Amino acid sequence: MRSGLILKLSSPDQPGIVAKIASYVATYNGNLIEFSQFSDQIGKKFFARLEIDTTELNVDVEVFKTNFTPLAHSLDAKWHFRILPYKMRTAVLVTKTDHCLNEIIWRSELSELPIEITSVIGNRNNCRAIAERSDLPFHLIEMDGGKRESGFEKIRELLIAQDVELIVLARFMQILPADFCDEFSGKIINIHHSFLPAFIGANPYRQAYDRGVKLIGATCHYVTNDLDAGPIIEQEVERVHHFHSPADLSRLGRQCERIALAKGIRYHVHDRTLIDGNRAIVFPD
Amino acid sequence: MRSGLILKLSSPDQPGIVAKIASYVATYNGNLIEFSQFSDQIGKKFFARLEIDTTELNVDVEVFKTNFTPLAHSLDAKWHFRILPYKMRTAVLVTKTDHCLNEIIWRSELSELPIEITSVIGNRNNCRAIAERSDLPFHLIEMDGGKRESGFEKIRELLIAQDVELIVLARFMQILPADFCDEFSGKIINIHHSFLPAFIGANPYRQAYDRGVKLIGATCHYVTNDLDAGPIIEQEVERVHHFHSPADLSRLGRQCERIALAKGIRYHVHDRTLIDGNRAIVFPD
Amino acid sequence: MRSGLILKLSSPDQPGIVAKIASYVATYNGNLIEFSQFSDQIGKKFFARLEIDTTELNVDVEVFKTNFTPLAHSLDAKWHFRILPYKMRTAVLVTKTDHCLNEIIWRSELSELPIEITSVIGNRNNCRAIAERSDLPFHLIEMDGGKRESGFEKIRELLIAQDVELIVLARFMQILPADFCDEFSGKIINIHHSFLPAFIGANPYRQAYDRGVKLIGATCHYVTNDLDAGPIIEQEVERVHHFHSPADLSRLGRQCERIALAKGIRYHVHDRTLIDGNRAIVFPD
Amino acid sequence: MRSGLILKLSSPDQPGIVAKIASYVATYNGNLIEFSQFSDQIGKKFFARLEIDTTELNVDVEVFKTNFTPLAHSLDAKWHFRILPYKMRTAVLVTKTDHCLNEIIWRSELSELPIEITSVIGNRNNCRAIAERSDLPFHLIEMDGGKRESGFEKIRELLIAQDVELIVLARFMQILPADFCDEFSGKIINIHHSFLPAFIGANPYRQAYDRGVKLIGATCHYVTNDLDAGPIIEQEVERVHHFHSPADLSRLGRQCERIALAKGIRYHVHDRTLIDGNRAIVFPD
Repeated sequence: MRSGLILKLSSPDQPGIVAKIASYVATYNGNLIEFSQFSDQIGKKFFARLEIDTTELNVDVEVFKTNFTPLAHSLDAKWHFRILPYKMRTAVLVTKTDHCLNEIIWRSELSELPIEITSVIGNRNNCRAIAERSDLPFHLIEMDGGKRESGFEKIRELLIAQDVELIVLARFMQILPADFCDEFSGKIINIHHSFLPAFIGANPYRQAYDRGVKLIGATCHYVTNDLDAGPIIEQEVERVHHFHSPADLSRLGRQCERIALAKGIRYHVHDRTLIDGNRAIVFPD
Repeated sequence: MRSGLILKLSSPDQPGIVAKIASYVATYNGNLIEFSQFSDQIGKKFFARLEIDTTELNVDVEVFKTNFTPLAHSLDAKWHFRILPYKMRTAVLVTKTDHCLNEIIWRSELSELPIEITSVIGNRNNCRAIAERSDLPFHLIEMDGGKRESGFEKIRELLIAQDVELIVLARFMQILPADFCDEFSGKIINIHHSFLPAFIGANPYRQAYDRGVKLIGATCHYVTNDLDAGPIIEQEVERVHHFHSPADLSRLGRQCERIALAKGIRYHVHDRTLIDGNRAIVFPD
Repeated sequence: MRSGLILKLSSPDQPGIVAKIASYVATYNGNLIEFSQFSDQIGKKFFARLEIDTTELNVDVEVFKTNFTPLAHSLDAKWHFRILPYKMRTAVLVTKTDHCLNEIIWRSELSELPIEITSVIGNRNNCRAIAERSDLPFHLIEMDGGKRESGFEKIRELLIAQDVELIVLARFMQILPADFCDEFSGKIINIHHSFLPAFIGANPYRQAYDRGVKLIGATCHYVTNDLDAGPIIEQEVERVHHFHSPADLSRLGRQCERIALAKGIRYHVHDRTLIDGNRAIVFPD
Repeated sequence: MRSGLILKLSSPDQPGIVAKIASYVATYNGNLIEFSQFSDQIGKKFFARLEIDTTELNVDVEVFKTNFTPLAHSLDAKWHFRILPYKMRTAVLVTKTDHCLNEIIWRSELSELPIEITSVIGNRNNCRAIAERSDLPFHLIEMDGGKRESGFEKIRELLIAQDVELIVLARFMQILPADFCDEFSGKIINIHHSFLPAFIGANPYRQAYDRGVKLIGATCHYVTNDLDAGPIIEQEVERVHHFHSPADLSRLGRQCERIALAKGIRYHVHDRTLIDGNRAIVFPD
């Protein structure tokens, strides 16, 4: 990952907005590596992601960030700066299956995902080995037998203590409490093993088999209070045939899940996503 | 299309069934070009499609067909023979949009679809020109203002008078009466402009936009009384992005609709489909 | 297609370029609908496509275009303005097969492609009927028996007389003369029925069959003197199996050809392509 | 994996062959779970893969296998039986990059690939850690500085000593000696990081970048003496854009490589492939 600065911004759409932002960068001698933007003609909003080479910046980068505030306010914008290179502190929540966890670990080891996995948290012990062989701390937090509420409170404390910025539900088979969703809004990414909005809820591969679909899929999305209904970041599909059993669909779908989740996380940690109500703006790389 | 004979068969699964059928063919000196089959380990059923070269057959093809009856009964089978080459008598029902109709006409002109279009039936006049420039009879049958019931009765009479075997709903924007669905069960193919079971009902591209999906699709399926819920023959998808408006989705989706419908019809008229409850066995070519 | 103005521009990359261009637009009260851009970090070049809503422009659009010249020169840019709505004058060259021609006609009738087909030119008569049934003039220009050179001269004269801006080779089975390629450089789009650079030259589906590939494809590209080697605009693939004969590959590939060609033409006539040596920058919609 | 028996067979095509084989199975009370077959109308050959439930077999399975010989000879067939469940003894050859190795290990741990990895062999030490953390023996066999010939001799001895049945080149960056290819003919599977036959040889992602393709791919194939030209088992593609650098293509392509290789190995170890000259018959699951 290059050094530099990323600016994410959303605001009401208005003439001259690109000129104002680009001129601000130019004034301080920043060099635009990328200026992805979207003028939403339906919602009348503006979304942008800038990547700025700060090598020749004529002020300190903190001054550059601070001085942007008046312009941002005049645009009625929400904005966020990130100094590169950066590794996002990430917790991975799991239950039994480990393929999504394995994918995340592998891609972070390979530097495809600039994350630092602060902990792997499971309500079962199944994924302990795969976490620990990569020297990642594994926390068993039980949820059964009336321990659900206290379990989520423990998770919450751990996330806060570790200053976690991203929570990945890597086939975590528990529905999150509403206040948990609210507290970490925009910071929780889930992988659902169907092509949403088809097959919401439990056992989507069985549902897909029963419906006789010819393509199965997986959906990576931000988590909201509304089950499986948050903003979609990425979706993948795989062709299937009449001879595939529910177990076959599950096997074939694992690949979709791994790819959709890995891409979704990458877009998020590279600040390539902006949430707009129930939709996600994604500038892919 | 080659000359020869196609046999479609479904039955309870049982040991020795392939041997019995293949031996029957061999006894009469038929040559198997293709013997696609599926032993459903879950439903305990057997499905097969045989294509037989009858050049060296040692009896008349009608004798071959008739003599098969005792074996079929002993297998408790449902079966169907078709003598090739064959053109299936087909009616196409349309409303306003013409891209699916155009695709069907073009593929039949090119011999990709072995069908004879007996008539194009519209509840609007929009598709008249495209039908008539290919010398296909166009029938306007009005449905509005209380004419729906009589309209479907007129369609029914036309289909029977023309001895139609296949009814294609090529973006026909009327829900079929239940008794109509029953009368032509297994003979009506629809194209729905979403990736079913997502976005059942009206305006699926608008629904897809509102949900913020990253892939849109189209589904070709047999029509049953249950809206958009019949056995799926084929599905296609296309990747979309945040910058696509509902009109863009509609434009991009047309391509999916055309491909899924054309493939679905092809599989049906080549006897490559078998219906099993709400699922379709499809042996693609 | 909206009214407004499109600006295509390429130049050496340099800091401040986005600010300068966007500020120019803002000065004259133009509203940016889209500002797609690419800062090529390898080639050190800058590519952009702007779509400008000119409703509130505070000068005449011709003044706006003219006054841009000094800025463009200072950037050492190549640039091009297009006033919308616009229909590009297009000639389609064909030989025997008609599926690509049919696709282009159909998409232009449906307003998916903003083109005006000035003529269909064939070195065979096979496509005459499909052109004429849509009231398009068909010109038979023979190429066999020593008539190739004079044939291309006739085509050249026709293109110039009709002020043609885009020449589409829709399965035109003749290699263009070098001077013809040069004269219409950047204005000729071809569809090659393979996944280039695999299977250059004649009979690619037979080559694909012999090689036993598991995916076939089609490539839409600008034509240069170097056979099948010009800048690629779009590619499509389709999965195939061992049981597909060369004729099957040809049938399945037609779909890839139609889609890749239609998309490639759309990108070109919407000014969404910029040629950079042997590569094409494409901002898809 | 179920218990039972797999029969792979290829022979000249001839009438009655399915009947003879299926009748043989029925005679001994075997139950056909799957009878995939292909009558090649061009090459006049027959290919089949049978999966037989042997629970009710009325003879010992070894008798069943032995007694098949006269029939096989009468058909002039090549054939192979495999008793299930089965784990294929597999060596993985690597150099520097580890993503393909990781994929194979992960899928075998998850029982998606019924293989026993007897050893990981590298001509660099880069992949040692990833092998050893899964308790797989890693062998460093140096190839540089004149040690290539002796290196391959060491590998050969190791493969024979360990009774290896499958050799996977998981991004192994050495060209195999001709006699090595011959000795293990049909038992070596390679992943090439391009969409063959495009970009044969070194650095295919750089070649793809230079050519400006819009889709990149990976090809899993059997290894022959002819570099990157053996029978293709599986291919995968991924869409790319002008803004992707060669490094991006390499990143995106890793996913194609992992999927194509994993699928190719799965088809091979499930006996779903038959080699026919330079083409591979593949009955996918």
